[in-house]
Amino acid sequence: MKKVLVVLLLIFVNQLIAQKNEPVATGNYVLVIHGGAGTILKSQMTPQREEVYMNALKKALRIGYSILKNGGTAIDAVEATVRVMEDDPLFNAGKGAVFTNEGKIELDAAIMNGADLTAGAVAGVTTIKNPVSAARAVMEKSNHVMMIGGGAEKFAKTVGLEIVDPSYFFTDDRWNGLLKAKMEDSLKQNIYRDSTKRSFYQFNNKDDKFGTVGAVALDQSGHLAAATSTGGMTNKKFGRVGDVPIIGAGTYANNYCAVSCTGYGEYFIRLVMAKSVADLIELKNLSLKEAANIMIMKKLPALGGDGGLIAVDKNGNFTMPFNTTGMYRGYIKADGGMEVKIYKD
Amino acid sequence: MKKVLVVLLLIFVNQLIAQKNEPVATGNYVLVIHGGAGTILKSQMTPQREEVYMNALKKALRIGYSILKNGGTAIDAVEATVRVMEDDPLFNAGKGAVFTNEGKIELDAAIMNGADLTAGAVAGVTTIKNPVSAARAVMEKSNHVMMIGGGAEKFAKTVGLEIVDPSYFFTDDRWNGLLKAKMEDSLKQNIYRDSTKRSFYQFNNKDDKFGTVGAVALDQSGHLAAATSTGGMTNKKFGRVGDVPIIGAGTYANNYCAVSCTGYGEYFIRLVMAKSVADLIELKNLSLKEAANIMIMKKLPALGGDGGLIAVDKNGNFTMPFNTTGMYRGYIKADGGMEVKIYKD
Repeated sequence: MKKVLVVLLLIFVNQLIAQKNEPVATGNYVLVIHGGAGTILKSQMTPQREEVYMNALKKALRIGYSILKNGGTAIDAVEATVRVMEDDPLFNAGKGAVFTNEGKIELDAAIMNGADLTAGAVAGVTTIKNPVSAARAVMEKSNHVMMIGGGAEKFAKTVGLEIVDPSYFFTDDRWNGLLKAKMEDSLKQNIYRDSTKRSFYQFNNKDDKFGTVGAVALDQSGHLAAATSTGGMTNKKFGRVGDVPIIGAGTYANNYCAVSCTGYGEYFIRLVMAKSVADLIELKNLSLKEAANIMIMKKLPALGGDGGLIAVDKNGNFTMPFNTTGMYRGYIKADGGMEVKIYKD
Repeated sequence: MKKVLVVLLLIFVNQLIAQKNEPVATGNYVLVIHGGAGTILKSQMTPQREEVYMNALKKALRIGYSILKNGGTAIDAVEATVRVMEDDPLFNAGKGAVFTNEGKIELDAAIMNGADLTAGAVAGVTTIKNPVSAARAVMEKSNHVMMIGGGAEKFAKTVGLEIVDPSYFFTDDRWNGLLKAKMEDSLKQNIYRDSTKRSFYQFNNKDDKFGTVGAVALDQSGHLAAATSTGGMTNKKFGRVGDVPIIGAGTYANNYCAVSCTGYGEYFIRLVMAKSVADLIELKNLSLKEAANIMIMKKLPALGGDGGLIAVDKNGNFTMPFNTTGMYRGYIKADGGMEVKIYKD
């Protein structure tokens, strides 16, 4: 009789834990990253350029892996990993950010800790070397979640983050990208003068004008975290902000999964992409892969958008779906097994 | 046999429609509004002041009602209703916005059309008379969803919205509010010098430093829409942005429901409040009331936050839960039946 009671009690306690979905320390860990999705064609790449990208992704993965391997937290791992990509001019974030219509750079970033649902984000910042670290400072050193523009920069300075002159972000590649985008825009305006807004949307959508970097991780304690950083769209106007710094859209983490998105941000905001993936898992009992596929392969194209995401769940399952021609991406598992990819499988 | 086939076909078609959850034109319509939740104590109000608030809420409801009654769209109704409240110095939005730490005003607003999941938002704007209309212009006259700061103002000017000198937003009440908040903050810093961040959070949270206006509507065609507008927190620093302009957090609408939130915005962002309500309905088959109650009465206080929301579903059911002492709120139904309230029932 006593035994039966004990068993019943154990079942009850287990159920309580299951309901609360507390993280379980399994010792397993994994890190997944992306460097942006878009029109990435093998025909327009050289083997040399491919290798440069692959090596950059591997470098970022190794930094985050060393943190996770040594028992570090998921939030530390995603921040450090994104910083590496922010510092690399290859990616549209931090150093490699694209230019706005006015020839400036405006950076957005967000970070979220699934363990306690704390989050931080900055948008429209122009002098912070590593926006992802500013997002983390907002999360941990203020009682706010989001700061924008000059106010966010003031805060970053106050907490001692590295501030750089806007010229730090200048790269020839991105400047030429802006010139090209402006040229194309003026051509388009002639061709599409009478077009509807809809076709304008679609036309723009075919361009490779966006890029983002992101990381999601599960640590040995069973905690999840996500971070994303971007320079936004080349030639963007009017202080446009995409999905990256919007908690729930481009970045989200709870105790079920961690998600970081890349793509045509407006569609990701309208779909509240990252939170939708998490809710399909929590409320519909879908697998991470099923949830992410529904959002990226069905809901996103149904609205006319494109892009991709990376996600990891509490059991260490991960997925990297995209509906564009390519997405810079990669993962590293607890056993050190690492893979980086650019095009579709 | 033919009859059976026809019936089966009809069932199949109905199921297809049910899966797609297309809006059904029932001729029913409803408008629900809020003017902010917080520490609103009957002991600190006079019957005269109560009446002034009630009349302001009724005025806003009547404007939106006339649009819905005449067959207008939900999106037109929520925009017009929020504009009335933005123009009223009683509410912390538009004309009645509170001051930042620097003695400026920074306005945020968002709008979303459930019919096609289009959305628009502005944040940190200082010269746009009606931010909700700027949000709508972003939604309909740009290919973006969110614009911030000076860029958003430039865009508003470009599309012909009314621009005002920042002095337009000056009210004695709000200025005194800032002076009081600064005084209290310096006192708190002395008292709570050694306090943990957590208690700082909670202490602030007890203040009535936030306020927002919002409207949600169902129109005769069965479409849903939501709009929210705010001046943010009194004495806010560093370009802080709350949940209002975050699609999915303070504002969200699809074909299941429309939601507008008010409260301590940081918690609403972390919970992705408005989208969470919608997902509990869509993915868990909860009623609107059940979904909103879980979020406002359980998830929000569990995290340490407070506030409320208004929501309406596709069948015209509506709910107005809050976990603070009061929330300025009201509704008007198709039969003209109207009610406005301030405190708990």
